[in-house]
Amino acid sequence: MEDLLIHNRMKIKSKINGEYTVDFIQNLKLSLEKEISRNNCVIIIDEKVLSFFKKEITADINNQIVAIQCSEKNKTIDYAQEVIRKLVKLKFRKDSDIIAIGGGITQDIVAFISSILYRGVNWKFYPTTLLAQCDSCIGSKSSINFDLYKNLLGTFNPPSQIFIYNSFLNTLSDSEIKSGIGEMLHYFFTDGIDIALKLSNQYDKLISNRENLLFFIKSSLKIKKKIIEVDEFDLSIRHIFNYGHTFGHAIEAISNYSVPHGQAITTGMDLANYISLNLKMLSLENFNIMHNILIKNKPSYSINSDNIELYCSALSKDKKNKGNKLGCILSNGPGNVQKVFLNIDKNLKDLIINYFKAY
Amino acid sequence: MEDLLIHNRMKIKSKINGEYTVDFIQNLKLSLEKEISRNNCVIIIDEKVLSFFKKEITADINNQIVAIQCSEKNKTIDYAQEVIRKLVKLKFRKDSDIIAIGGGITQDIVAFISSILYRGVNWKFYPTTLLAQCDSCIGSKSSINFDLYKNLLGTFNPPSQIFIYNSFLNTLSDSEIKSGIGEMLHYFFTDGIDIALKLSNQYDKLISNRENLLFFIKSSLKIKKKIIEVDEFDLSIRHIFNYGHTFGHAIEAISNYSVPHGQAITTGMDLANYISLNLKMLSLENFNIMHNILIKNKPSYSINSDNIELYCSALSKDKKNKGNKLGCILSNGPGNVQKVFLNIDKNLKDLIINYFKAY
Repeated sequence: MEDLLIHNRMKIKSKINGEYTVDFIQNLKLSLEKEISRNNCVIIIDEKVLSFFKKEITADINNQIVAIQCSEKNKTIDYAQEVIRKLVKLKFRKDSDIIAIGGGITQDIVAFISSILYRGVNWKFYPTTLLAQCDSCIGSKSSINFDLYKNLLGTFNPPSQIFIYNSFLNTLSDSEIKSGIGEMLHYFFTDGIDIALKLSNQYDKLISNRENLLFFIKSSLKIKKKIIEVDEFDLSIRHIFNYGHTFGHAIEAISNYSVPHGQAITTGMDLANYISLNLKMLSLENFNIMHNILIKNKPSYSINSDNIELYCSALSKDKKNKGNKLGCILSNGPGNVQKVFLNIDKNLKDLIINYFKAY
Repeated sequence: MEDLLIHNRMKIKSKINGEYTVDFIQNLKLSLEKEISRNNCVIIIDEKVLSFFKKEITADINNQIVAIQCSEKNKTIDYAQEVIRKLVKLKFRKDSDIIAIGGGITQDIVAFISSILYRGVNWKFYPTTLLAQCDSCIGSKSSINFDLYKNLLGTFNPPSQIFIYNSFLNTLSDSEIKSGIGEMLHYFFTDGIDIALKLSNQYDKLISNRENLLFFIKSSLKIKKKIIEVDEFDLSIRHIFNYGHTFGHAIEAISNYSVPHGQAITTGMDLANYISLNLKMLSLENFNIMHNILIKNKPSYSINSDNIELYCSALSKDKKNKGNKLGCILSNGPGNVQKVFLNIDKNLKDLIINYFKAY
């Protein structure tokens, strides 16, 4: 029993709020009722999630719910202001809690609002997507778009409590699950090969039977926890989690975000590995082991001579660049990534085009 | 020399950035040149201040200046977004510094922007008003208006360095000096009577010869430092600095902010003392000692039976209230203030009207 309790709660140390918890819960209704009874609160929820979980969520709390539209175009200060207006109307006070229920966009909007309303209010989070459950729910970051700049604004502001409820995953599309799997693989590969192989062996089953994802969600969070507890503000070692992201973000950007984040990251890792192989950082054997895992989760989107300039222009805008050098994470093998600065030159362009021709 | 150095630098401990400094400087141009040479930076400056100090401020840094219009109506997220847009145009980076030059509104806008741009950037502050020099420059608070709600939004985000340059004060109106004096008196009365008496004895001279204000600015900051180092996030003991503010804010609100902040606070203190006297918390002798100091700095604005309801309605909206009770700081005598919750009833209304009839 003791052992079970330990496995169902994870604690994350934070420089901002001391410590916060992740609880893996079995009963959404009970958990919500408990949290709501503790303090005056308002639920901010993705309207799509609300439509699926009306029964569990609306009992006794009908008047304290703000349903929000979670599209990337609403991840703005202007939309945050609309939500704040609704909170004020509901007489939300400085000592009230916000309970956020939704995916990454809900998280970004609520974390941001919680940072600036009354100079900071408490919030709790029920992540509903695989991406939010396995990754973004811990780590304190909020991201807000500004004009044409993705994630230019934001704060570091973790929730006080996170509740992971597996059944949310049953409402997700296969594509959303694949996106979460891509993000998890990126954590696994910074750690070693074992968990990635285990996931790969169950790949098809995981997409059809989402309960099996729980082990991988916990594994992902454990790997992330180790690093963010040391470098919460992303100043040094946390940079390793940009593995796959530099090359993936640029795919997202030039595809107008039609490629789901975690799948773009999947290609991003495979491409980073290919570059590592060509720079003689990575053995062909290790490239192939990882490639055979990644290929199952790759989107069909590819770069060719028609869009390579656009792609490199997107790469050149990465926040982690130094001067004209592309700051990215390459691989020396599973569990061994390394920060490298690359020239965005003909050599790199040829490598990228060759990768997409070959794979 | 050693002694002089100590007196010209004050260090403030902060849970947010560890520690920040206040330097009392003699030469604005030299100080700015030194700060600008340290790192890539953009100056955000109140356009009125820029017009007075063009020579000192524009040397070599013409292209890295954003002049802002510092009115209360611009203390909004929308205006902050306009300023961010200008920073992005100037290629402001995550590791660049913002140098803010201006009064409290400049401080609010820049501190807020620095909290949310790239999840936080470094900023330095040259306060130019007496209010900002003696009070707001330390304490970490930023305040942003939202719709009709004053200071509903904000963050805790101190600058890394503060530079106090006395000559800024020569460009201020007498009314702005009086406003600062009111704020300083509120610090002095939470501490004792000596410094307030000293200020009172020099009152007229201080307004005409602003160099003499330096001692009082330092005294004010010293008193504030002691408290904010213990309660930076305004959760407990820092509440004592609401002395005069609860009653003063309501005067500001119903006068449509025509009464300057520090002068409204002056009346606010005198009124709080009058209520303390009537609640037998304060002796008549102590009331009179403080009244004779405050009266020199009081605005003419008064409350009567015509506007008492409006005034009490403003009081009832105070953020520090609990339920229907007015949370305010009353006085047991100089250096001895106390948090009290009052009913906003006929008794209180009569007291307020009587105060304004008598004084």
